[in-house]
Amino acid sequence: MHVEPGTALRLWSDDAFGGVLRSVDDLSSAKVDLRFVNPQTGPFCVEGAEPGDTLVLHLVALEPARDWGASAAIPFFGGMTSTDRVVTLQDPLPDTTWIYELDRDHGTVTFAARHSEHRIELPVEPMLGTVGVAPAGGEVRSSLVPDRFGGNMDTPQMRAGSTVYLGVNVEGAMFSVGDGHYRQGEGEACGTAVEGAMTTTLIVDLVKGGAPGWPRIEDDGHWMTVGSSRPMEDSWRIANGELVHWVAQLYDLHVMDAYQLCSQVAQVPVANVVDANYSVVTKVAKAVLPPATAVNGMHADLRARARSLGPL
Amino acid sequence: MHVEPGTALRLWSDDAFGGVLRSVDDLSSAKVDLRFVNPQTGPFCVEGAEPGDTLVLHLVALEPARDWGASAAIPFFGGMTSTDRVVTLQDPLPDTTWIYELDRDHGTVTFAARHSEHRIELPVEPMLGTVGVAPAGGEVRSSLVPDRFGGNMDTPQMRAGSTVYLGVNVEGAMFSVGDGHYRQGEGEACGTAVEGAMTTTLIVDLVKGGAPGWPRIEDDGHWMTVGSSRPMEDSWRIANGELVHWVAQLYDLHVMDAYQLCSQVAQVPVANVVDANYSVVTKVAKAVLPPATAVNGMHADLRARARSLGPL
Amino acid sequence: MHVEPGTALRLWSDDAFGGVLRSVDDLSSAKVDLRFVNPQTGPFCVEGAEPGDTLVLHLVALEPARDWGASAAIPFFGGMTSTDRVVTLQDPLPDTTWIYELDRDHGTVTFAARHSEHRIELPVEPMLGTVGVAPAGGEVRSSLVPDRFGGNMDTPQMRAGSTVYLGVNVEGAMFSVGDGHYRQGEGEACGTAVEGAMTTTLIVDLVKGGAPGWPRIEDDGHWMTVGSSRPMEDSWRIANGELVHWVAQLYDLHVMDAYQLCSQVAQVPVANVVDANYSVVTKVAKAVLPPATAVNGMHADLRARARSLGPL
Amino acid sequence: MHVEPGTALRLWSDDAFGGVLRSVDDLSSAKVDLRFVNPQTGPFCVEGAEPGDTLVLHLVALEPARDWGASAAIPFFGGMTSTDRVVTLQDPLPDTTWIYELDRDHGTVTFAARHSEHRIELPVEPMLGTVGVAPAGGEVRSSLVPDRFGGNMDTPQMRAGSTVYLGVNVEGAMFSVGDGHYRQGEGEACGTAVEGAMTTTLIVDLVKGGAPGWPRIEDDGHWMTVGSSRPMEDSWRIANGELVHWVAQLYDLHVMDAYQLCSQVAQVPVANVVDANYSVVTKVAKAVLPPATAVNGMHADLRARARSLGPL
Repeated sequence: MHVEPGTALRLWSDDAFGGVLRSVDDLSSAKVDLRFVNPQTGPFCVEGAEPGDTLVLHLVALEPARDWGASAAIPFFGGMTSTDRVVTLQDPLPDTTWIYELDRDHGTVTFAARHSEHRIELPVEPMLGTVGVAPAGGEVRSSLVPDRFGGNMDTPQMRAGSTVYLGVNVEGAMFSVGDGHYRQGEGEACGTAVEGAMTTTLIVDLVKGGAPGWPRIEDDGHWMTVGSSRPMEDSWRIANGELVHWVAQLYDLHVMDAYQLCSQVAQVPVANVVDANYSVVTKVAKAVLPPATAVNGMHADLRARARSLGPL
Repeated sequence: MHVEPGTALRLWSDDAFGGVLRSVDDLSSAKVDLRFVNPQTGPFCVEGAEPGDTLVLHLVALEPARDWGASAAIPFFGGMTSTDRVVTLQDPLPDTTWIYELDRDHGTVTFAARHSEHRIELPVEPMLGTVGVAPAGGEVRSSLVPDRFGGNMDTPQMRAGSTVYLGVNVEGAMFSVGDGHYRQGEGEACGTAVEGAMTTTLIVDLVKGGAPGWPRIEDDGHWMTVGSSRPMEDSWRIANGELVHWVAQLYDLHVMDAYQLCSQVAQVPVANVVDANYSVVTKVAKAVLPPATAVNGMHADLRARARSLGPL
Repeated sequence: MHVEPGTALRLWSDDAFGGVLRSVDDLSSAKVDLRFVNPQTGPFCVEGAEPGDTLVLHLVALEPARDWGASAAIPFFGGMTSTDRVVTLQDPLPDTTWIYELDRDHGTVTFAARHSEHRIELPVEPMLGTVGVAPAGGEVRSSLVPDRFGGNMDTPQMRAGSTVYLGVNVEGAMFSVGDGHYRQGEGEACGTAVEGAMTTTLIVDLVKGGAPGWPRIEDDGHWMTVGSSRPMEDSWRIANGELVHWVAQLYDLHVMDAYQLCSQVAQVPVANVVDANYSVVTKVAKAVLPPATAVNGMHADLRARARSLGPL
Repeated sequence: MHVEPGTALRLWSDDAFGGVLRSVDDLSSAKVDLRFVNPQTGPFCVEGAEPGDTLVLHLVALEPARDWGASAAIPFFGGMTSTDRVVTLQDPLPDTTWIYELDRDHGTVTFAARHSEHRIELPVEPMLGTVGVAPAGGEVRSSLVPDRFGGNMDTPQMRAGSTVYLGVNVEGAMFSVGDGHYRQGEGEACGTAVEGAMTTTLIVDLVKGGAPGWPRIEDDGHWMTVGSSRPMEDSWRIANGELVHWVAQLYDLHVMDAYQLCSQVAQVPVANVVDANYSVVTKVAKAVLPPATAVNGMHADLRARARSLGPL
C-alpha cells in the first residue's frame, strides 16, 4: 500500500502468536511455529522516500483490539533459559501459557498465576514491539529481528506520543508495524510480553536526507536512541555512540564534550535480552538540558497534528 | 574499626581520583595510577557477622564534602573507547579532565564544555559508586571491581534512602564504602562520574542468615537486584534470576509464575558498562504489586530510625 | 542454474573486493562499497532438495585464478579496531592495502610489508570463506553473514578434500560459494584474508532428510561443526552442542557420555572474529576415536568420486 | 619457599578435586567445595624478582603421579550448562563422575562411558591447567581464575617443552603451579579435564624488565599468547593484540604490518570456555616465518639446560 507523507493511518495488527493462544491450555509448542510468528501490518510504501532519507512515524494512539492478551514461556526461547544460541544440554523449562484478561474500565490486565491462586491487576501500558523499515543491502529479515532498520526492538518506549526516526534503505522505505503489547517489562525476560492485537493510529512523515545510523525516538520528555546487537554491551555501545553524536549535533558540542555530558545525564533502560539481537535504549531527559530542537521541530509539529485528528 | 549492628556512622570518603584532579590541566595520565584509584573508607568489622548472614546498610544521607567534582576521559578506560580488555590498535581518545563547580544553594553542578563556551547546570544527585563486603574464598579484590560482594557497582540507585542487603562472606563482614558521585548517568559511559569527596551517614545492621546470592537494594519505591559480570547479558541474567527468586519468595509464587510476572513489570536500568565487570540493575516498583515485606520490614524500620537521627 | 545431485561443477568466483584492489594505492575506502562486497557464485538450485534434507558439497580442488591476492585493513572493519557494532569514538586505523604476489611454482604468496622492506614467502593454502544455502523463514542475508545456513564462516577448514553438510531450508537448497582465500589465519584478524579469485571444483550431492542444525564438515581426519553467533562463547556453545550430539549419534553414546568424551578430545580452532557473526569450529580427530561412519559413508564415497574425475 | 633463578624444581601437585573423586560413586556435589578446589603447589618466591620483570618457567617434564584421573560434570559448572553467571531457571545436568584408568605402558587413559559399555583408549597428553604469579594491585585471586597473571588458563599448550613468560607484579613473583590434566580437549567443555595428581619438573628463571602484558608461551614450534576475559571475543582481542605487538617486536615490523601478517598466519586454539574468565590462545608457527629470537634465546637455552638434567 502506498502512503503520502503526512498521512494518518489507523491500523490493526494481530498479536505475535497470530491469535492462537487463547487459553492456558493452548501451548506454544503445539500451536506456534517460531518461523512464522510475529505477523506485521505492512509493508507500506512511502511516496518519495529514497535511501538516505529519514522516515518519521508518530504514534498517536495504541488501543487494545481484543479483551485479552497472552504470554508464554516458549521452550528454549527467552532470557532465563538456554536457547538455540545459548546452547546447553539441559531440559527446557515447562511450556506454559498465561492469559491476561483486559479490564477496559480500569485500564488493567490481570496476571493470573498458573501454580497458585494469585491474581494481580497490572496497568495497561500499550506499546508496539516491532516498528521497522526494509533493511539495506537487499536483505530480508524475520520480524523477530531488531537491528539498524528498527524491527523487533521490544522497548516500552514505543508508545503513544512517541516519534520514531528511521533511516530509509530502499525506495519507498517499506515500513511495517506490529507485535502489540498491552504491557511489557524492560528486558522482556520470558521472551513474550502481554501479547495482544492492537489498533494503532500513526502519522507517517518523511524528511529528505538526514538518515540516522540507528533508530531514534523522541517524545515530550526525552531524546532516545536504540542499539540492537550481541553481546549486550555492543547494543549499548551502538546506542550510546548514536546518542553522543545526536547530543553533539543538537547543542553544537564537540564530541568529547557530548561524551562527557551524556555520561552524567543518560538513562539506559534495557529493551529486550531475548530476541535475535538484544536491544538497549539510551536516553536523555530534555528537562535536564537547555531547550533544543531536533529535525526542525518535527516532534512538536506531529503532536499538534495528532491533536487535530480529534478523539479517535 | 569495629561496629555494633544498629550503629549509625558518619563517614568521609575521598573521591575516586584521591583528590588529585583539581583543574582541567590535571590530566589523569599524569596524576592518576589506575592500580591505586578509588580509595575506600573501611573496612569495618561488624560484630557478630558470620558467613551466610545478611549485612544491611541503610544510606541516611549523602552530602558533597567539597565544592567541586571532577570527571575525566582516562586513556583506554571507559565505554566509548578500546580498553585493556576490548583491545584494538587504535590511538586513545584525548586525555581530558572536566571540573564541575558545586552550587549548594541551587543544588547543582556545572558542566563546563572544554571545547566551547557551553555551561549547563545539572541537578546534584549524590550516590555512592562503591559499597561492598569482603569477597568469599579468601579473595582480595580491587575497589574497581563489582561482583557478588557488591563493590564498584556504580548505580545511581545507591542513594540516600536506599537499604542495601549484602551476603556476608567472612567473619565481621568487613564492609567499606566510597566513590562518591555528585551525579552519574546510567552506564557511566566515559568511565567516571562527577567524582567528589562525600560525607555519608549510614546505619549498619545485621540479619542472621538469609544471605542473598547477589546484592539487593530496597527503597521506598522499589525492590532491586544488581548483577555484575561480562558480557552484559550475563549481568542481566544474574540480576533477573535473583529478582525472580526474590519476587517468588516475597509473594509465595511458583518460580515460573514469578518469572512471568517479572517479565511484565521489571525495569532494567543499566548501572555501568565500564568497570571490570558490567553492572545491571533489575527492579520492580512496589506500586504495581500488592503490599509485601522483605527481611521482616527492615527497610521501613531503618527509615524510621534514620528520621530519629534528626537533622544531620 | 539447476544441478542434479551427483554433479561435479567447476566454478569461478571473483575475490571479495570484486577485483578492485589491484595495487597498494587502491584503498578500500575509495574502491569498495561494503554493502556489495563478497560476490558469490550461485545460487544453484539442486533438483529434488526439500526443506529438512541435507545438502552435501565436496570440495575437490581450489585453484587460485589470478596471480595475486589482496588484503586490506578497511576502516572500522576487523578485529583489532572499533567497528559499526563495537562502537567507540576513536579514529579509525589507517586504510591500508597489501598485495600478495602468487608464485605458482613454489606454491607461495609473498607478504610485502608496507612500512619496511620485509618480504616473507607464505605457503598457499586455498580455502573458501563463504559456502551457504538459502536461509530459512524467507530471509535473505548478506554474503558477509555466517549463520545456521553456512555463509561467510571464514574457516581455513573449508579446503580441498572437505565435505560440507548443510541443512536445506528451501526448495532447491539454493547454494552458492565464493570468497576465495589464498590463505587465511584463524580469526581473520584484520577482517580480510589473502583475497583472490578462485576456481573451485566441487561435487554436489543430496541426502533426503537428516538436516543438521548447523553446518558440519568432514574431511579424512576430522569430524567438525561450525557455530556462528555473538558473543563468541555462544558460537562455541552452538558448535560444541552440535558436536556432542553428532558424536553421541556416531557412537551410540548417551549425551552425557558424549559431552564428557568431547571435553577430553575436542579441538577448537576459531574461524573468524570479524564478521557479522563470529564463527568457531569444534572438531574431533578421527584418529583418537574408534572407526565410525557418518551419513552412510558419504565422505569416503565422495573422495573416491573426486579421484575418478582425474587430473583437473 | 625461596628459589634462585636457574633452579630446577621437581614438584608434586594434587588434582583439582583434591583427590576426593576416586570412584564414579563419588559425586562432586557431595565431595567437592567449589570455593576450595584446585589446590596449587606454591607460592614460590623467586630471588630478585621485582615488578616489571619477566618470570620464566620452563616445563621440563609432566608425569602422572597416580594411576587414575577423574572428571566430573559438576552441577551448574561447565560450558554446556547454565552456571552462576549464565543464569537460567533450568534444572542442572545430572551430577556425574568419570574415572579414567591410566595405562603407563601404552600411554593411555581409558574413557569408560557411564550409560553404556563403551570404553575408549585415549593418549595421555599431560598438561598443567594452572600456572601463575601473584596478581597486581594487591589482589588475591582464586586458583580457578585465569587473567593477566596467568592462573587457570587451562590450555593444552602448557605441556612439557613449553616456556612460559609471565609479568612479575610483586617482589618475588610468588608463582605457583597445579591442576594437572592427563589430557584435556580445547575448551574444556564439561568444566573438568582428566584431572590427575602430577609430578612437574620445571626450571625457574628470571629476566630483569621486559614484563609482557599477558602470558606468553614459547615452544620449539610456536610463539603463543594467552588472553583471559569475558566475553570470549575480548579474550581473543587481548591475545591477538599481544601477539601482534610481539611479532612486530620480533621482526622489527610496523604494527600495521604485524597486524596484517598475523591475520594470515595465526592459529587460534581456544583454551577454556568454562572458567571465571574464558581463555583463548593465539599462536604463530615459527616454520612459516623467518628465524627470530625472543628474550635473548631463553627458550633454546632452557631446552639445553633441560636436556642436561638427564633422565628424570
